[in-house]
Amino acid sequence: MATLNSHYLKLKAGYLFPEIGRRVKAFTDGNPEAAARLIRCGIGDVTEPLPSAVRAAMHEAIDEMGTREGFHGYGPEQGYEFLRAAIARHDYRDRGLEVADDEIFVSDGSKCDGGNILDILGSENRIAVMDPVYPVYVDTNVMAGHTGEARDDGSYQGITYLECNAENGFVPQIPSERDEKADVIYLCFPNNPTGAVATRDQLEAWVAYARKHGSILLYDAAYEAYISDPEVPHSIYEIPGARECAIEFRSFSKNGGFTGTRCAFTVVPKGLTALALDGERRPIHPLWHRRFTTKFNGVSYVTQRGAAALYSEQGRAEVAALVSHYMGNAAILREAVTASGLQVYGGVNAPYIWVKGSEGATSWQIFDRMLNEANIVVTPGSGFGRAGEGYFRISAFNSREKALEAADRLKSLTWQAG
Amino acid sequence: MATLNSHYLKLKAGYLFPEIGRRVKAFTDGNPEAAARLIRCGIGDVTEPLPSAVRAAMHEAIDEMGTREGFHGYGPEQGYEFLRAAIARHDYRDRGLEVADDEIFVSDGSKCDGGNILDILGSENRIAVMDPVYPVYVDTNVMAGHTGEARDDGSYQGITYLECNAENGFVPQIPSERDEKADVIYLCFPNNPTGAVATRDQLEAWVAYARKHGSILLYDAAYEAYISDPEVPHSIYEIPGARECAIEFRSFSKNGGFTGTRCAFTVVPKGLTALALDGERRPIHPLWHRRFTTKFNGVSYVTQRGAAALYSEQGRAEVAALVSHYMGNAAILREAVTASGLQVYGGVNAPYIWVKGSEGATSWQIFDRMLNEANIVVTPGSGFGRAGEGYFRISAFNSREKALEAADRLKSLTWQAG
Repeated sequence: MATLNSHYLKLKAGYLFPEIGRRVKAFTDGNPEAAARLIRCGIGDVTEPLPSAVRAAMHEAIDEMGTREGFHGYGPEQGYEFLRAAIARHDYRDRGLEVADDEIFVSDGSKCDGGNILDILGSENRIAVMDPVYPVYVDTNVMAGHTGEARDDGSYQGITYLECNAENGFVPQIPSERDEKADVIYLCFPNNPTGAVATRDQLEAWVAYARKHGSILLYDAAYEAYISDPEVPHSIYEIPGARECAIEFRSFSKNGGFTGTRCAFTVVPKGLTALALDGERRPIHPLWHRRFTTKFNGVSYVTQRGAAALYSEQGRAEVAALVSHYMGNAAILREAVTASGLQVYGGVNAPYIWVKGSEGATSWQIFDRMLNEANIVVTPGSGFGRAGEGYFRISAFNSREKALEAADRLKSLTWQAG
Repeated sequence: MATLNSHYLKLKAGYLFPEIGRRVKAFTDGNPEAAARLIRCGIGDVTEPLPSAVRAAMHEAIDEMGTREGFHGYGPEQGYEFLRAAIARHDYRDRGLEVADDEIFVSDGSKCDGGNILDILGSENRIAVMDPVYPVYVDTNVMAGHTGEARDDGSYQGITYLECNAENGFVPQIPSERDEKADVIYLCFPNNPTGAVATRDQLEAWVAYARKHGSILLYDAAYEAYISDPEVPHSIYEIPGARECAIEFRSFSKNGGFTGTRCAFTVVPKGLTALALDGERRPIHPLWHRRFTTKFNGVSYVTQRGAAALYSEQGRAEVAALVSHYMGNAAILREAVTASGLQVYGGVNAPYIWVKGSEGATSWQIFDRMLNEANIVVTPGSGFGRAGEGYFRISAFNSREKALEAADRLKSLTWQAG
């Protein structure tokens, strides 16, 4: 008799966004005029048009597909050389970082990559995540059987949660010698949801930890294009030794506006090894390569041509303009929240603003007040984990007009000082 | 210390296509004039242009993405309603089959779906595959730890191989009561590589087996568009009871020429259940839904618009023309091989022709002779499993010109009768 993967039954219902939807609907059903005024600053999805360089390249690729000579069928599963080479050159080698073309694996999304990477890792690994955390990191480990049951607070037994708070600048401390060793550590900088970035020193400490203990860092740099501080590393490979302990995830979703077009990539250095059951350390690059060729058939040729156009002169200018647009929103929203008397984090090197609500208020209480009084949808921080309680996230992905309107409303709210 | 998934180390090197490449290269390096004459009938990739209805829809979608109003960011992970509804209606409900829109999950490929489906199934299941077999079915189970070690003949311990041969028309027998029960059974009709189809009676017997034993059928119907015999079922759901025991995989790769554009779908009926560790039978639709929302971000909006255009009047006419083109090639190649004195199977309801070589010749011996004497690249049947030894596969995916030229050369070869 066929069995199902019972680890899935441990998953808590996807609580956060459905619950937001339920409360927004209850509110707008009862307040038709307020519904029209609603400004959504919740989900981290881009809003501005796909760059014209991308559209032109995609149009051209579609025309090619209309001829026998230019038709492209199955491509290399890991991505076309034209795109892998453009990525390795512009994002790494031109910045002085050693990354070979064939260490780039082009995929249809970082969310997919972040889940799929677990396929090639062992089931014995102790997993560590930042708290607050992008929920997908946790849920994919639950599905893979790497955790115990859920606790009442939504966390899972068997996972190490690395607390991120105002005191540590939302960058987790290195575990002490007394703490349980973490074998696979998810780091995300610039961070979703806190907007925090890690300094070079902090990343050096994590690389040193990983090398000392043979751990692997899963480094999510999906928001690297939003870094404005020249001192902040864009890639984990800026840290010496990272090629022996880190996999980097990047995406075109947030820099090129590809959330609906779907293209991303992972970097798996050939020097990165992990322990096999026979006691040998072996490179994992061949395993990821094998996973790609066996369980994936590559990203659409048309999409890859579009992604490559982001590296053209025009494409780079358009990415810079998009980033500048969203970060302009972030500055406007940061200033408004600060003026309202709340403590603001993030929003300088990231398109997310992370706000501490007034003392004693829960994230959902703040959410409700924002919805009812300002008709603004934010994301309750507690939805990202225990350490997010009392905070909320505002996304800067919006039109300028709506960002300005949201800022006006945010300023008009008064909060009891925290 | 981080560990890797040691099951990957059981995988035999991807022998078939690299070895074909090595032999072709050795031949063409030594024979520059013959190299120019080479006709590739090996890999099952389409060759004709992407339908104009698809290109027009994709162009339009790209233009939409260039406006704030028409921009599409994250879409529903399971696919846009416009595409799910078109699939459910045209491929199922218009043919009298009960499939709801939300039982359709739109993905970027059947290869991905076929691997990913294992995520939601238990690790205890006894897996059965047809032999010869599409290698991905086996390899993904090896990766997931569902097998033992490889044997010398390339098969894996712990998998049930269902032999397909000329005697059973390349449709496997139902396991007897004495045989080990199979919990998860891969069936592929029209078959890759043999081109065989299953009759209604044969599929009814498999559905009866699955229902009796609580097994799940993974039904790969990627080539259903090539069925010409009106008696042959296009979908497993034409068999009463299949909604309780079967998942169907479909793709736009071979009907719409999407191998480089990437769109496919699975059908997971809500009535399909499997056993959880707590001893209850539970529906697996919610697990697949959860996997989609957690580990995938949907297919590109532009691509989904292109796929939906395949269901327009023009799109359907273009699909019919493509199928007719490739099946015209199949008829030409079938006739040529038959004229050369060899026994031919398939190529009537499928774009693959499966040929029994002359008596005693191995698949690789035939491959070498085809390459050297006819400068035609075929696929050795033994690459698909032990039961394929002595056979070879010819793909009908080609231009008419090349199919005619290949046919001329095939006729000129003489074989010792088998």
